Amino acid sequence: MERMKDLAYYNGKITPINEMMIPANDRGFYFGDGIYEVAMVFGHKIFALQDHLDRMESSAAKVKIDLPYTKEEIGDLLTQLSQKVESSCQFLYWQVTRGTSPRNHLFPEGVSSNLYVYSKPWKGVEMSDSYKIKTVADTRFLHCDIKTINLLPNVIAAQTAKEAGCQEAVFVRDGFVTEGAHSNASIIKDGVFITHPLDNLILPGTERKHMLRYCKELKIPVEERAFTVEEMLEADEIIMSSTSHPSMRVMEIDGQAAGMKDKDLVQKLRDRYMEEIGQ
Amino acid sequence: MERMKDLAYYNGKITPINEMMIPANDRGFYFGDGIYEVAMVFGHKIFALQDHLDRMESSAAKVKIDLPYTKEEIGDLLTQLSQKVESSCQFLYWQVTRGTSPRNHLFPEGVSSNLYVYSKPWKGVEMSDSYKIKTVADTRFLHCDIKTINLLPNVIAAQTAKEAGCQEAVFVRDGFVTEGAHSNASIIKDGVFITHPLDNLILPGTERKHMLRYCKELKIPVEERAFTVEEMLEADEIIMSSTSHPSMRVMEIDGQAAGMKDKDLVQKLRDRYMEEIGQ
Repeated sequence: MERMKDLAYYNGKITPINEMMIPANDRGFYFGDGIYEVAMVFGHKIFALQDHLDRMESSAAKVKIDLPYTKEEIGDLLTQLSQKVESSCQFLYWQVTRGTSPRNHLFPEGVSSNLYVYSKPWKGVEMSDSYKIKTVADTRFLHCDIKTINLLPNVIAAQTAKEAGCQEAVFVRDGFVTEGAHSNASIIKDGVFITHPLDNLILPGTERKHMLRYCKELKIPVEERAFTVEEMLEADEIIMSSTSHPSMRVMEIDGQAAGMKDKDLVQKLRDRYMEEIGQ
Repeated sequence: MERMKDLAYYNGKITPINEMMIPANDRGFYFGDGIYEVAMVFGHKIFALQDHLDRMESSAAKVKIDLPYTKEEIGDLLTQLSQKVESSCQFLYWQVTRGTSPRNHLFPEGVSSNLYVYSKPWKGVEMSDSYKIKTVADTRFLHCDIKTINLLPNVIAAQTAKEAGCQEAVFVRDGFVTEGAHSNASIIKDGVFITHPLDNLILPGTERKHMLRYCKELKIPVEERAFTVEEMLEADEIIMSSTSHPSMRVMEIDGQAAGMKDKDLVQKLRDRYMEEIGQ
């Protein structure tokens, strides 16, 4: 099999990512009318594929997008596509949009949804012990549990953080931390792992889910509850987690030193992750 | 000049709308990272072009997108493009996205924004005396003053209304009506024209703006304030307005008869509109 450096797929067509063209009438392009997933590929195997397929199904159902294939078929296709990329370690992205049709708010009839996939080489597991984060007002919609491509507020937040010399923004709603612009936020205090409960204000992150399981396995007590900015500032550790950045340890919040007081506990969680991905 | 039935434009390329292809790496496609405008073309002339260019500039500035050309140049281009379409009456759409670049929340550097335009024949001025609307919870983000392409909640609301046998959804936040899924909402009570004030909860609609001016010219008193669902149910008239649907008179809200009690005042506003567009 001739492998590619990177690859994009759109409704059956395959090209290098930068060459993929899609119709301007794809509802993703003018309404952001779609949902997406990101997974890591390690050793040419998609990590936590089932979690991602399940969440894709849930997101699609919540916005009433019919998937173009069964989730098992999509899983098989993603597996095949990741085999076609040279690098054994990849960043795999896919999105489903409501279809291609002249612009009209109403759902198009008799039109199949569109599946776009790309996979590109990834540098390997990314962790950090020197993350700086910036708090920003959480003015997003009340559907943050759905992994939609309506991401403009996240884009603006991430850029605002960067311009403040930070690597991630953390959203604050009514005094409580919800999540990051592209990660979940958790804290550790007195040996307890604390993270926002699953509701409409945060994305049900797969790494969040895995960390909660690791905690259970390691007998680390867990509290699923919202925490305030003050609690975050006084926490022993602050961890920002996502599929591509599973364990980013925060040392500074809005220019103020924070966290970095329970490395051992963080290390235990990281060890479990590395074990699980087989690296 | 050879005219086309309809036309799409993307960064200099021109095709029929259904044939236009754009790069999958356009940030509009995976982040909804863009803003847009819609204008009507009557007699091959763009109605209220300056209003739309001004709002485009304002939307772009609020999300920190640099326009690819000056707004005067964009206005000239839109005028030229609308000349290339056969029908003298057109629905003209354009959007600016932050550029084409590999997916990354941070603003891409050294990349120009993308201008997408299409224009298609329009059936003429659309008004209604039999609009039915459905109230839906306004769970959108707090940036509804920006005309972004993050429109998934509007899509869902419009479809929900349709499935209830209605033509438009009207958003309700904390008991107050904000706006429609693709229109502004106004009421008339005892000869007073009442419409939501301009803030971050509604789009500054061009038709809303024109109607307020017509009211001034016609000595109709105006109140720019939020009104409740109860006030809307008891109003003499309820008008949903947008560029493409400038005067939709509501006869039913959530299945309950409403409005339709001050046709003369509505007619005065419609007459001013028809006069202004020269039809």
